[in-house]
Amino acid sequence: MIPWSRIDRAAAAALDEVDPLRERRGEFAVPPGVIYLDGNSLGALPRAVPGRIEAVLKEQWGQGLVRSWNGAGWIDLPARVGARIARLVGARADEVIVADSTSINVFKLLAAALELQPRRRVILSEDGNFPTDLYMAQGLCGLTGRAELRLVRTEAGSDAVLDAIDEDVAVVMLTQVDFRTGRRHDLQAMTARAHEGGALVLWDLAHSAGAFPVHLNEARADFAVGCGYKYLNGGPGAPAFLYVRQDLQERARQPLSGWMGHARPFHFVNGYEPAAGIARHLCGTPTILSLAALDAALDAFDGVDMAVLREKSVSLMETFIARVEAEATALGLALASPREAERRGSQVSYRHPEGYAIMQALIAAGVIGDFRAPDILRFGFTPLYLSHAEVFDAAELLCEVIRTRRFERPEFHRRALVT
Amino acid sequence: MIPWSRIDRAAAAALDEVDPLRERRGEFAVPPGVIYLDGNSLGALPRAVPGRIEAVLKEQWGQGLVRSWNGAGWIDLPARVGARIARLVGARADEVIVADSTSINVFKLLAAALELQPRRRVILSEDGNFPTDLYMAQGLCGLTGRAELRLVRTEAGSDAVLDAIDEDVAVVMLTQVDFRTGRRHDLQAMTARAHEGGALVLWDLAHSAGAFPVHLNEARADFAVGCGYKYLNGGPGAPAFLYVRQDLQERARQPLSGWMGHARPFHFVNGYEPAAGIARHLCGTPTILSLAALDAALDAFDGVDMAVLREKSVSLMETFIARVEAEATALGLALASPREAERRGSQVSYRHPEGYAIMQALIAAGVIGDFRAPDILRFGFTPLYLSHAEVFDAAELLCEVIRTRRFERPEFHRRALVT
Repeated sequence: MIPWSRIDRAAAAALDEVDPLRERRGEFAVPPGVIYLDGNSLGALPRAVPGRIEAVLKEQWGQGLVRSWNGAGWIDLPARVGARIARLVGARADEVIVADSTSINVFKLLAAALELQPRRRVILSEDGNFPTDLYMAQGLCGLTGRAELRLVRTEAGSDAVLDAIDEDVAVVMLTQVDFRTGRRHDLQAMTARAHEGGALVLWDLAHSAGAFPVHLNEARADFAVGCGYKYLNGGPGAPAFLYVRQDLQERARQPLSGWMGHARPFHFVNGYEPAAGIARHLCGTPTILSLAALDAALDAFDGVDMAVLREKSVSLMETFIARVEAEATALGLALASPREAERRGSQVSYRHPEGYAIMQALIAAGVIGDFRAPDILRFGFTPLYLSHAEVFDAAELLCEVIRTRRFERPEFHRRALVT
Repeated sequence: MIPWSRIDRAAAAALDEVDPLRERRGEFAVPPGVIYLDGNSLGALPRAVPGRIEAVLKEQWGQGLVRSWNGAGWIDLPARVGARIARLVGARADEVIVADSTSINVFKLLAAALELQPRRRVILSEDGNFPTDLYMAQGLCGLTGRAELRLVRTEAGSDAVLDAIDEDVAVVMLTQVDFRTGRRHDLQAMTARAHEGGALVLWDLAHSAGAFPVHLNEARADFAVGCGYKYLNGGPGAPAFLYVRQDLQERARQPLSGWMGHARPFHFVNGYEPAAGIARHLCGTPTILSLAALDAALDAFDGVDMAVLREKSVSLMETFIARVEAEATALGLALASPREAERRGSQVSYRHPEGYAIMQALIAAGVIGDFRAPDILRFGFTPLYLSHAEVFDAAELLCEVIRTRRFERPEFHRRALVT
């Protein structure tokens, strides 16, 4: 056991010496002088991506032209990339597919869940869940006129939302890791409890996939969605993924029934007939450039044991928290994340009344995290390209910026980041 | 007037000499030895794209990281690219935005149209309309349980679908150019007739945008969608666009209400509130790589007069048809497209019982068109990168392949194209 409270820079550097993932850093193009703690918003550029995209552009598109739909396997890319993500989230290869955006996928799977529960009409979720999930549920409810979104206000880290399950609740929509605080739900336990109440569960894995091991199959989770551009490093606006448990697939239908989800898309018949399995959750033509970037980005996970990744994630977070903890009270920093690593994703958040200005000062100095109103400083910990020494330095800078009130200097008041 | 019936290769080459768009060919990377007549399925690679994408990858993403959402203007890209497309389809800059896929956009705008017509419940369309449009309408109808898709079987080139407008019809969903035959509807006249019947109109411009001038505003068209990867050359699966007429925008709401269409997306409130104007039709995070490719691709249209583009399109098609016509009857080729250029998009189709094998032989010889079951050979004419000489040669090869029955040789039976 590492005595976190006594960690110093030499100890952090020593952790890096024995880090089994230290070679992975070389697979990312993080700019010199930057400590990047915002991979939970947009993952860093994997070095494999530009070469892959150049080949897609110049060879597959430029030379192969329309023939590349088959010749270069474009048509299979959503399923092939889905299968690679499946390993990271504890699902079978044929349970995950890449399509559209997380928002669109939420809509599809909520609609599918409601149809599977004809006697129930409520979508249950938490106040403060990531807004787009709530907005999509609101859109769906408004459109059908038969469903209702019920929001429960819960304490951070509590699973009290499940107390609200009654026989009206068709589906519980939960984001495993809270985007503000990094609070992590126990996916397995909460899925089991929801099932006991007769509800299905839709998990949003936006801040889970690629951040730590997820065990969808073990938990018998029904549905999940997730994001390609955070811990999976697929690039800005990378397409999202969705998961449907195998034994639900033939019954689960979704209403965004585009031609790519048709059983025979190139027969061009008038009537929709869903494809077998997970493919019915495709809709329009897949965005090949963005999909290929995500595919190349996933190379960085090849051979990575997700348990080892999680161990490093915890070690990075504990290094950061330990260094900040020494001065936190004096500096007015309050930990917004759960103190127990087990209840956190791969993110640490602090509250500070001057949070916005502090984050601008950090960014100006090369430590990139982000800010969420009204007072949250967010730091994401991506084990594939961060070192303990960097994380220690970032914590030190955070303390220094506040201690010296550097954040008050006008040159740090840059334009705000938006995501 | 060119005497098309007497055109020969020298005359075709002479047309190229005076072609005002001949310099545009240099902006595309069409492989040597290929005559590309499938730009109506996937447009050729514009030379501006690889450099632009490399900059997005290495500079904006790699160096700028999350800061590029503002710093590189990613957040504004859907509106900026939409404004560029607006010029090509006769709309105001603030009436078009790039988002999601054509399929998804059909769903959004059909739902918006139905909501605007509370006393009407029918979506009227044509049998044989592009299937994904029909499938999305079916998905919407199934989900709401209140709407109905009514399909009318019409003769090619007829506007008889409009005879079916009654007081139940909320919206008429039409694809301007038929994907099989290239038949072009009169957008202005049909919009006016639909309006007389009290219906709104949703136009699918998949085979129109970038192919010829479209005049959405002049026609007072209500809604439109279109494709980024055909005549706009945005690359495989490029994001699609949508149009909402300005005076409808504040009343038109759509149910795929993701955070990017929220009035204040970064306030992270629980309740959805649509953004003003066209931005409410965004949903999830935009796919920046694919969007940037589309943006760069549009450079090839800068300074192009769409009337001149249409003139060349007609001239290319007439060259092709004239050369084929001389032998068509003897070869068993039947023109599937309207003979009058005015009633065609930028595509010419022929029927032949051996169409599939003939197309494989053409492709093997470097003339790339495509095949649509049961018997249609499709040829797309993209004025920015095709010459009259090429089109003449392609017509000659088509005739020769049939005349000599080269298509029966097994080496031409390659794997089928899928789109």
